[in-house]
Amino acid sequence: MQKKSKFEEKIISEKQIFKGHVVDLFVQDVELPDGQRAKREIIKHNGAVGIILVENDKIALVRQWRAPMQQETLEIPAGKINIGEKDIKEVARRELREETGYVAENLVKVSQFFGSPGYSNEMLYMYFAVNPKKEFDTLKLDEDEFLNVEWVTIEEAKKEIESSLICDAKTLLALNYVEMKKEYKNE
Amino acid sequence: MQKKSKFEEKIISEKQIFKGHVVDLFVQDVELPDGQRAKREIIKHNGAVGIILVENDKIALVRQWRAPMQQETLEIPAGKINIGEKDIKEVARRELREETGYVAENLVKVSQFFGSPGYSNEMLYMYFAVNPKKEFDTLKLDEDEFLNVEWVTIEEAKKEIESSLICDAKTLLALNYVEMKKEYKNE
Repeated sequence: MQKKSKFEEKIISEKQIFKGHVVDLFVQDVELPDGQRAKREIIKHNGAVGIILVENDKIALVRQWRAPMQQETLEIPAGKINIGEKDIKEVARRELREETGYVAENLVKVSQFFGSPGYSNEMLYMYFAVNPKKEFDTLKLDEDEFLNVEWVTIEEAKKEIESSLICDAKTLLALNYVEMKKEYKNE
Repeated sequence: MQKKSKFEEKIISEKQIFKGHVVDLFVQDVELPDGQRAKREIIKHNGAVGIILVENDKIALVRQWRAPMQQETLEIPAGKINIGEKDIKEVARRELREETGYVAENLVKVSQFFGSPGYSNEMLYMYFAVNPKKEFDTLKLDEDEFLNVEWVTIEEAKKEIESSLICDAKTLLALNYVEMKKEYKNE
């Protein structure tokens, strides 16, 4: 736990604006450190996982349509944590299997971060797939999910950053991770 | 422009749920590639800037309260692009000055990315401050903004990742950038 912050804002009231399948939206009235009041717009999200899957020096990326940006992207395999799911590694295992057909000897957490800390509490937990193996030829996608898996080298990935097909924070962090060949603990 | 995507979802209708100061929320009915329908919850955001400010091998991080996570964080200086602002480098220049009191000979864009591509169109533009210089002793903060600037080495930053004080994607990417001593074009 963090110690008390001198910047802490006290929540005076909170109103729920929207309850969705992916996000909930709240507006809070808060008291600032100087006693003044302000409003905060807050997205609540149950969190997500992303998986770094590397084989033969290529990383697995998922090609899919992203409605918020109205464009196709290439991202590491990822998925939402459902309400009530406590075992995050198990979520990562499921998403890896569903989106790529792969299983791993182990999934090691290498990072966790907020994507948009200014307005959202969504935490992304990033795992590295240790000794991955293809187990299923057919993907097991959600009914509203359409995607392809593509394998790219770091050099190819850099070109797709230039082309804006790779354009999200978790995938850039995953590529840095692979490029820096960071150590992981196989616990 | 990207070529047409086989994964494209056609927007059938869009309903605005909320119009805020930071985020707008929409729910879309979309037609999937197989003709089925689905709903998409979408946050629209005008984008943001983040600035990598390094002096004497230390990076400037801002300590502040983040309402969505109800915790204090250490993040690179950053700020929202206001509606109508076209010159993003100028926004970065302003946020650098306001949050740190620094000016730079130049600001070079080193990255851009979506923090939460699953539900938000917020793009973050990351700049590196070339030849920075302290010009103002007093910060010029928004009236609802309270923060401290702290200077940390990469080694100290790694400890603050462990302590969860550094916990957001843009700051992790900025630290990777500094650690990998990536090249920039001083255009």
